[in-house]
This record gives sequence, C-alpha cells and structure tokens, in this order.
Amino acid sequence: MYEDLRKAVCEANIELHKQDLVIYSWGNVSGIDRKAGVVAIKPSGVPYDEMTPEKIVLVDLEGKVVEGGLKPSSDTATHLELYKNFYAIGGICHAHSMSATIWAQAGREIPCFGTTHADYFYGPVPVTEPLTEDEIKEEYELNTGRIIVRRFAELNPMRMPAVLVAGHGPFTWGSSDKAAVETMVVLEEIATMAIDTLMINPNQPQISQALLDKHYFRKHGETAYYGQKDDSKEKM
Amino acid sequence: MYEDLRKAVCEANIELHKQDLVIYSWGNVSGIDRKAGVVAIKPSGVPYDEMTPEKIVLVDLEGKVVEGGLKPSSDTATHLELYKNFYAIGGICHAHSMSATIWAQAGREIPCFGTTHADYFYGPVPVTEPLTEDEIKEEYELNTGRIIVRRFAELNPMRMPAVLVAGHGPFTWGSSDKAAVETMVVLEEIATMAIDTLMINPNQPQISQALLDKHYFRKHGETAYYGQKDDSKEKM
Amino acid sequence: MYEDLRKAVCEANIELHKQDLVIYSWGNVSGIDRKAGVVAIKPSGVPYDEMTPEKIVLVDLEGKVVEGGLKPSSDTATHLELYKNFYAIGGICHAHSMSATIWAQAGREIPCFGTTHADYFYGPVPVTEPLTEDEIKEEYELNTGRIIVRRFAELNPMRMPAVLVAGHGPFTWGSSDKAAVETMVVLEEIATMAIDTLMINPNQPQISQALLDKHYFRKHGETAYYGQKDDSKEKM
Amino acid sequence: MYEDLRKAVCEANIELHKQDLVIYSWGNVSGIDRKAGVVAIKPSGVPYDEMTPEKIVLVDLEGKVVEGGLKPSSDTATHLELYKNFYAIGGICHAHSMSATIWAQAGREIPCFGTTHADYFYGPVPVTEPLTEDEIKEEYELNTGRIIVRRFAELNPMRMPAVLVAGHGPFTWGSSDKAAVETMVVLEEIATMAIDTLMINPNQPQISQALLDKHYFRKHGETAYYGQKDDSKEKM
Repeated sequence: MYEDLRKAVCEANIELHKQDLVIYSWGNVSGIDRKAGVVAIKPSGVPYDEMTPEKIVLVDLEGKVVEGGLKPSSDTATHLELYKNFYAIGGICHAHSMSATIWAQAGREIPCFGTTHADYFYGPVPVTEPLTEDEIKEEYELNTGRIIVRRFAELNPMRMPAVLVAGHGPFTWGSSDKAAVETMVVLEEIATMAIDTLMINPNQPQISQALLDKHYFRKHGETAYYGQKDDSKEKM
Repeated sequence: MYEDLRKAVCEANIELHKQDLVIYSWGNVSGIDRKAGVVAIKPSGVPYDEMTPEKIVLVDLEGKVVEGGLKPSSDTATHLELYKNFYAIGGICHAHSMSATIWAQAGREIPCFGTTHADYFYGPVPVTEPLTEDEIKEEYELNTGRIIVRRFAELNPMRMPAVLVAGHGPFTWGSSDKAAVETMVVLEEIATMAIDTLMINPNQPQISQALLDKHYFRKHGETAYYGQKDDSKEKM
Repeated sequence: MYEDLRKAVCEANIELHKQDLVIYSWGNVSGIDRKAGVVAIKPSGVPYDEMTPEKIVLVDLEGKVVEGGLKPSSDTATHLELYKNFYAIGGICHAHSMSATIWAQAGREIPCFGTTHADYFYGPVPVTEPLTEDEIKEEYELNTGRIIVRRFAELNPMRMPAVLVAGHGPFTWGSSDKAAVETMVVLEEIATMAIDTLMINPNQPQISQALLDKHYFRKHGETAYYGQKDDSKEKM
Repeated sequence: MYEDLRKAVCEANIELHKQDLVIYSWGNVSGIDRKAGVVAIKPSGVPYDEMTPEKIVLVDLEGKVVEGGLKPSSDTATHLELYKNFYAIGGICHAHSMSATIWAQAGREIPCFGTTHADYFYGPVPVTEPLTEDEIKEEYELNTGRIIVRRFAELNPMRMPAVLVAGHGPFTWGSSDKAAVETMVVLEEIATMAIDTLMINPNQPQISQALLDKHYFRKHGETAYYGQKDDSKEKM
C-alpha cells in the first residue's frame, strides 16, 4: 500500500543526505497523501545509507502507525501539525543544515538581501519564538509544530515555504517531498550568503519591495514567465 | 545551423555547473556569432544535467528566436544589451555564485587586494546602482543590461570583464563563452578572499597602481610575457 | 591476539581520515579491552592510507608495548591517562579538526547555542587551562591527560564526551573507538555553527536548561525515545 | 637527462592541484639538483591536467634554459633567488591558496595560535614588506625573491619553511619539491584556522615559547621523537 508515496519519500530523504544537508541519522522528510490522510515519514534514528522504501513509516494524521515495523521520526508530531494547518503543502523537510541552523541558533530571521532569496521566499525567512519551559516539557514536538503555525498567523505558507525554529533549526515544505528538499537546499544557499553579507556590511538593508515582487512573481503564480510552459513545479 | 556555437555554449553551461557556481537551473551562459548577429543561450529553467546542444536557443540581437523549441533564458535581454554595447566580447556568463553574490548583495565593489585579482581584473570589480522602481517594473531584464552599460561609461569592458548587479549577482564576459565562465570562476576566488581579507584587516588598502599594472599587463596585451607564445586566450 | 580490537581501531582511524578531520598522519584513535587492560592505538607518524590492522600498536595501561613492531602514537600517554580516570569509556579520538581546533586555540569553551549541540553534549564543551612551562617540559603528553582529568573534576565524562585542550585541539571519547570518531564529527559540526552564530549575534545566550535537558535526554539514558529499540549506540 | 628530477617535479605540481590549492595554471613547484646546479620548474601558463614530465623545464641558476621546449614559469627568477640564498632547500612551491593569500593580502604575519602551527613552523609565518614602485617595474620576479631573502635576514629558512609576499601570496619550501607542497597544504590549514581564531578572540595571544619549542622539536631535529625511526622526512 502507498508504494509510490513510500518510494518518493525514501528518495527525498536520500537526496537530502546527498546534498550534504544532514549527517548520520539527522533530519527527516515526509510526504502526504491528502485523500487518504496518510503521511509517509523517515523512521527514527536510521542512517541514510540504510534507507529503503520498506523502512519508511506510514502514519495517519493523529500519528497512529498505519503500516511499517519501525518507529516514525521523533519529529513526527511537528510534521503532522504542519500538514493539519498548511492545507496546500504536500511534503515537509527538517534538517540541521549548517547556515540555516546558525540563523536559527542566533534567533534571527534571514533578511532578504538579494534576488536569489526573492526567487524562492517572498520576504525574510521567519524565526519562531523560543518555546517556554512548559511547552518543552510536555508534548515538545507537537508544540514545535504549534509555535510554527502561530508564527504564520499572518504569513502565507505557500509564499514562505520555510521557517527557523529558534535554538533548533529549519523546516521547509512545498507541493511535494521533493520540492521541500529543494527548498532546504536553496535555504542553505541564501542563509550562507546572508551571513557574509552582514559581515561586510553590518547595516545592509533588504532589497526593495519592487525587486522582491519582480523576482518572486516572475517565478511563481499567474504572472510567472520563468521556465518552460509545462514547468508546473516552478509555479507552485 | 550554428551547430558549433550551440555545442560550445552547451559545454560552457555544463562547465559552469561543474565548477559549483550554480545549482538547479540557476545561471546561464551565452555566446555570439558576430557576423551572423546570432546569440546562443541557455533555455529558461532547464537543469544542467538535462542540457544538450539541441536545447540551446538561438536568438537574434532583438531577442527573436531564430532556432530552438524552448524559451530562452529569462535574462536574455540583459545579455543582448551587453553584446550591443561591448563590441569585442564573444561570450557572457551569469551566476549566483556564493561570494560574488555576497558582494553584490552588500552593494560594494570588490577592492583589488592582491595580485590574484590584478591578474584578471584591471582595478576594483564595479557594482551597479540599484534599479529604480520604474526600471524594475517595466523591461526589468533590459534595464539590468542598461544599468551595467551605464556603469561602464568610463570603464573598458575588455580590461574589466565582470560586474556586480546590486542586490542580484555577477555577470562576467570574455572573448568566448568559455572565457566568460573562466572569469566567473576566478571572480568567485577573489571575491571569497576579499571577504576575509576585510575581516582580518577592515582598513586594508588596495595594492599599488604599479603592482596592479605589473600583474595585469604581464598577462594581457602587447607587453604580456606570461604563458606560452600560442596562448592567445591569456592575451585577450 | 586482540585481532578484533586492532581491526576496529584501524577502521576507526581510517574513518577519521575519510571524514576529512585529519590530513597526513595527524590525529589518532584508540580503543581499549578493559578486561585485558590492553589499549590499541595508531602508530606514530604513519599516514592513513598506509594503515592496516597489523600496524596498530598494542600497549598496556602503563604504556609498555604488548605487541606491534612500530612506535605507538606520541599522544599515547594522554589516552592512557583518560582510560585510567574515565572508567566507562571504550575509545578515544584526537584530531586537529578545523573548527574545534579554532575554539581550542581561542581558549574558549563552545557554548550550547542549539539542539544539535544538546543532542550530543550535555552543556558547553569545556576547554582546559593552558599547561604551565613545567608541565610542558617534562611528561608533556601525560600532563595533557592530567589537565583534562582535572578539568572534569565536576563533569561527567559520559555526558560530556569531548574536551578542548587550550592552544592545541580536541579529544573526544565514547563507548567505543567508533563512537569516539562519531563524536568528533559532530563536535566539528557544532563548533563550526557556533563560530558564525557568534558572528551574527555576539551576545547570543545559550539555550534554556529545559531545552538542553529535553534534547539530551530524548537521545540518552533511561528516558530516551529517539531511535529504534535496539539502537543501543544512541543510549550510551 | 634529469629524468627523475623532472618526474618528481611533475608529480609535485600535480599534487598541488589535487590538493585544491591552485586552479587553472596558477602556482608552480620546482626542485633542484644541487650538484648539477639545475632547477626543474613548471612551464608558464600550462594547465595541470596537461602536465607531463617532458613539459617540465630545466634551467640553470642564472635562468638559462638547459632543456625543454617551453618557457619556464614567469616566477622562475623568484625561485632561483631562493635557491641561491637558502642553501639547504631542495624544492619550492608557490600558490594562491585561499587562506594563506588572505593573510598575504592583509599584509599580516600568521601568529602561532596553536600546536598545529608549531608542529611545522617555528614561530609566526613572516610577511614581506611591499615592493617599491622601482622594484616592481624592473626585475619584478627577481626582486620578489630578494625581498623574501631580506625578510629572512634573522630567520632560519629550515625552521620557517614559508613566507607571505605582501599583496601577493605564499611561497613554501623544504628538503624536496614534495616536502614544499606538503608545507603549502599545512600552511593553508593553519592560515584558515588563524582567521577564525581571530574572529572569536580578536586579542588572542600566541602560544607560549615552551609549547612552541615542545611541539616543533618533538617533530624536528636531534630531539625529535614523533614518527618512526626511519621517518627522515619528519626530521628535516
């Protein structure tokens, strides 16, 4: 059951490792079958070079294991909370990638310093509030999801497919598990560039709204003209 | 038609990817046949590992597609404006390479801090003014070309084969598409070194005019003595 | 004799090299057979691509060579002092890995800036005092071990499997030689992230005690729930 | 003639490229046959993947080509000046390696911040004065050699096998061409670590004289005890 979903999620997890965004068993990618209400996710603590479609765990939106002999990722509750609240997303990725994690650790949003950023993220990449002691002690992973959702009260998750959890690291998402991983790769690029942009110009302002609009909307939405006609991925 | 040109431009695009200066479908390289007035350029949004000579698009200097079933790069208008104004160049390269983009984002020219820089660029690598809101809203890509040309009013593009577009990233050029890519590789090297040179010496002055002259002209022009006799590439 | 131990220690040394944490003949890994009181360690000055199980040297806890035709690592006395004082450890790793060495050179402990750190190290990674002139001149390597042990007077080496020797570099340890190398890999990751976290936020505080507890104890000890049931490595 | 020398120098040049310390045709390695007074050096402007022993150029100590159809490196006069003044060296290496060049560009010597540095360099790595306009205009490459020699008036080149030419980059040397390349690799490591050591501790002092002595002399000279007995390379 759900063979295609498990295969896709397995490949997306392996891609995350191949892109050097995770080491050992860190990080995780999931994908959802919206009709069936089933989420496929990486098993907990399994290294990437031992990953196979059979090891991917299937859970329902309440976290009950539907199929699979292994425990799902310890971050499963975070993923589920995002699927429940961000209705249009099809895949989620979590990593401790170097530069994005640096911004998360510093508790700072990533300013939009250039068009590379604007091509993918419609504004600064937001950072959550730190979790309170109570939120950490009980239902920690679920509360991590909640604090992300709270941060997006006035943000559109389809135009801002990434968040930094303060003191922790990034989560990204997209129309599919594969798209979520691509967003993580790009997030790492722009996070790295933003660090040294600040180093050589500590008071660097963000790019203009006009330039942000131009680059974001030339790749996304109705007015997009980047890429070939059938390139639906780019128009998510 | 123009089989050699398309093949060379295809190879130059693949080389750009191999040099780790672009990911996914970012960046683009073009080459020109000056006699025919035909420019070969990367198609829009096509990943580098799917690139073939057949996919390279041919356009005339007004941007009309001469041959090819795909849409040309969304940055085509920028390339054409440069070909029209910088008469001696044979190839152009655009990338969002890490360190060069950092300087572009910071809106700062790259000072000439050493002979590595002086071997290729005769002075600091210039940065454009930011585009105005009007320039962004209408004919954005053409205006990007115009603002580069404006920045070169008193600069010789054959002695300064690179520019940083503020808030965006670098363009490089040369006698051929291949030379433009080589210049991008070197630009990335010197951009990276300049960042940390500033970090350990924030008031670092540029090298002397004498040293700049010595290194630039031992590799370029009539007085060059670097390389072997038939090494015309070095004497562009 | 001790064929398995020598093979494991040889593999752990090669892994250290493969992980790009050492070049040439730098660094060393050892493992101990507690019942026999025998330590297997890298020979001094032998490059990693010439390493074989036969070349691994066996010494007793006083440093006397039990088996092997080569001289043991010049850092052997440091390893032995740690085995004698940290009773539960089974393997030790020493490297001059880039970022961990930077913190050692700066004489600063690595603050716990995020959950990546908290997943492996229960608090800031400590740095030793500098050795005195006398400690350097006589029994230097032994004194290096002693100063580490002194630094751990009030620390639990099983919860803090790493130390920075001031002006020198890191030592890590674990339940086995392999675990010691994994800890070195992770130490390098968090050391790198901590540098740039400080760069973009020089006054960055550490994460809360609650978050440190949560992440450390969800992977280690009685209350661990990360990983699969048989994943004993994670529960050291 | 001199087949072994040309082969060794060819291999050392290729190793320099493999170690990612040079791109394109940058950098050069030479070796000397002291009895014959013959120096083998990389040809000018030839890329590393086209290097063969036959292309290595042989020159005498006055720079006259003894054998070889190609022009020798444009930096040949610098190499010869060093061979004439540093009597014990057998090989020289020049590169524009990233971090060493950054220190050269910043015109700062590399402080001895740790034992990694002390294992190879007996003190801070010196930087030359900038060349004067006259020194640049006439006999530039020879004057580069002269200014290095002048900087070593009170330094022992066998204990300090590296120098930074201000605004330019590093030269290293050793008992052989191969040793010179190894020193360049290590110089790059310690140069990189020194940059970020300064970043997290701008007032970082150097290590003590006692620690410098200990580490340098446990690897070099009469009192060395690092490595195996026949490991003459380590005891240069």
